[in-house]
Amino acid sequence: MTGKVITCRAAVAWGPGQPLVMEEILVDPPQKMEVRIKILFTSICHTDLTAWKGENEAQRVYPRIFGHEASGVVESVGEGVEDMKEGDHVVPIFNGECGDCVYCKSEKSNLCERFRVNPFKSVMAIDGNCRFSTKQGNPIFHFLNTSTFSEYTVLDSACVVKIDSQAPLKEMTLLSCGASTGLGAAWNTANVQAGSSVAVFGLGAVGLAVVEGQTMGITDFLNPKDLGEPVHEKIREMTNGGVDYSFECAGNLEVLREAFLSSHDGWGLTVVLGIHPTPRMLPLHPMELFDGRRIIGSVFGDFKGKSQLPHFAEECKRQEVKLDEFITHELPFSEINEAFQLLVDGKSLRCLLHL
Amino acid sequence: MTGKVITCRAAVAWGPGQPLVMEEILVDPPQKMEVRIKILFTSICHTDLTAWKGENEAQRVYPRIFGHEASGVVESVGEGVEDMKEGDHVVPIFNGECGDCVYCKSEKSNLCERFRVNPFKSVMAIDGNCRFSTKQGNPIFHFLNTSTFSEYTVLDSACVVKIDSQAPLKEMTLLSCGASTGLGAAWNTANVQAGSSVAVFGLGAVGLAVVEGQTMGITDFLNPKDLGEPVHEKIREMTNGGVDYSFECAGNLEVLREAFLSSHDGWGLTVVLGIHPTPRMLPLHPMELFDGRRIIGSVFGDFKGKSQLPHFAEECKRQEVKLDEFITHELPFSEINEAFQLLVDGKSLRCLLHL
Repeated sequence: MTGKVITCRAAVAWGPGQPLVMEEILVDPPQKMEVRIKILFTSICHTDLTAWKGENEAQRVYPRIFGHEASGVVESVGEGVEDMKEGDHVVPIFNGECGDCVYCKSEKSNLCERFRVNPFKSVMAIDGNCRFSTKQGNPIFHFLNTSTFSEYTVLDSACVVKIDSQAPLKEMTLLSCGASTGLGAAWNTANVQAGSSVAVFGLGAVGLAVVEGQTMGITDFLNPKDLGEPVHEKIREMTNGGVDYSFECAGNLEVLREAFLSSHDGWGLTVVLGIHPTPRMLPLHPMELFDGRRIIGSVFGDFKGKSQLPHFAEECKRQEVKLDEFITHELPFSEINEAFQLLVDGKSLRCLLHL
Repeated sequence: MTGKVITCRAAVAWGPGQPLVMEEILVDPPQKMEVRIKILFTSICHTDLTAWKGENEAQRVYPRIFGHEASGVVESVGEGVEDMKEGDHVVPIFNGECGDCVYCKSEKSNLCERFRVNPFKSVMAIDGNCRFSTKQGNPIFHFLNTSTFSEYTVLDSACVVKIDSQAPLKEMTLLSCGASTGLGAAWNTANVQAGSSVAVFGLGAVGLAVVEGQTMGITDFLNPKDLGEPVHEKIREMTNGGVDYSFECAGNLEVLREAFLSSHDGWGLTVVLGIHPTPRMLPLHPMELFDGRRIIGSVFGDFKGKSQLPHFAEECKRQEVKLDEFITHELPFSEINEAFQLLVDGKSLRCLLHL
């Protein structure tokens, strides 16, 4: 189908919080430096939920195709794409890597100038148009550089990572977001050292991926609702003053503050992974910075996607990192609304949809 | 006078914002692990001003002897003090180093468990008593581990640094606070690398000491009042997206936010040195952490005082760091209230008082 429009099924969002509708849509061929891929598996992350609910008005653009955690194979490539070809196994990344900008050339950042994560972007970078359209010819908007709730999607090549064809594609889906975000936060952002104490706040897929990044796994669970004291006090008691690293994976400012205070003064580091769709500011006092606790954000686990994920895929293939346990449910693509509900209800970590 | 009470002059604060009163006071001998020093020079820092004004009610304890930036000689030492003896040249440090606690043993922190900076502390650690008293026998409270507005003062030995007797004592006064805080923030906290761009907000003694830590000094001055745009926008224009490091030395939250936004996304680091006596929280949104800008506090330039200041004093002695220009005024001790006014009016960087 190289160079031709593809007709396929996609789960289209028509308005905030409305059930997705499985539609026949048209997918244009990839333009210069773009790649069209056939999605084989996709799953749902809380970022999809937040966008689907339309909590942030500025992000309400419809009709739209959500989805950013997926795996598939290259169907065709646009002009100038030389690092991938038809049939290659790939995972889309919402936080791209062009390789040429000042950010990509810096060792300190994984925020590509043109293709970094941007929830406000809804069209392709090169021409400002959509590659998706309804059968009536109306545009359907893109989401998070990826739009994987479709049998075919078009991405900038900066947002597609080629992986070893022997790596298990089902599990590779998690490299697209949750696993990379969590494991990378532990490995790259915090660079947790052996012998360190760690607290993880929010044990969804991302939080559990942070845990997967620790050799020891989890030694103790705390349910804040069962405690007669703030959780940071309990953690300080248990860890002789606080943990070396805390990870906030809940997207809640009260939790963020508890995570911060749970870290040891003098050197504790809090890594924020949770998405905070709130108008409120950080609930930290400036003088609290002088207690030596530090706080930083982590996007996509500070992985430079195209450079570093292929190696990460190798480690998954060799079972040095185990991702299969993150997939708690599997459903056919047509049951995507049920998969959404499983996540809303907190019943699934990841529900893998088969396309 | 070893073991005896000393009668001497001190500038005593009797209430918030009231002029200091030069009084005859009694200074007890140093107890176990304490040192009594004869102050030769002291200067005034904004932290003294803030405490003197009594802006924080919890810190209102009177009568009290303020002052923390000074230099002098050891008059006598208490039991157990082995690293200093009568006649040694010393500088007091408000942020002590016991050398034995988990913080002192960590490479990551300079916040000693017992002797870290503590604006709420007003008595000696070992017995909870004051070493100062009025001639009527009433206690006069301590300040910031130091209380240098007195001809003689008693400190925990963890808060006294012995320096080379050849180093110029006048300039060594600045090692006690301002110079160490500013230079250390550049060298230790930020570890500014050659070729980096830097913005310093607030050019008092601390801000200028940050500048002294840069080989190039200052290349451009900006007066925010002269700009038709927020200062961070101007700085981003001038530096191709923002500076690598920004230093907030103003103690103002609007300035702190400008400093943060002036740093380059992806890797910019904002170091907070300013004291923020405000009930307001950090004016930063949690999602702004995901732009890759980082913010940390710096106390005493992250110097471990007793371990590292002697080397710093050597550098000053060899004129590798020039501190003499920070001393803009000199006055006799008796004119301390005039010296306060010079700082309040913004006329002095440091006014050195001769005792």
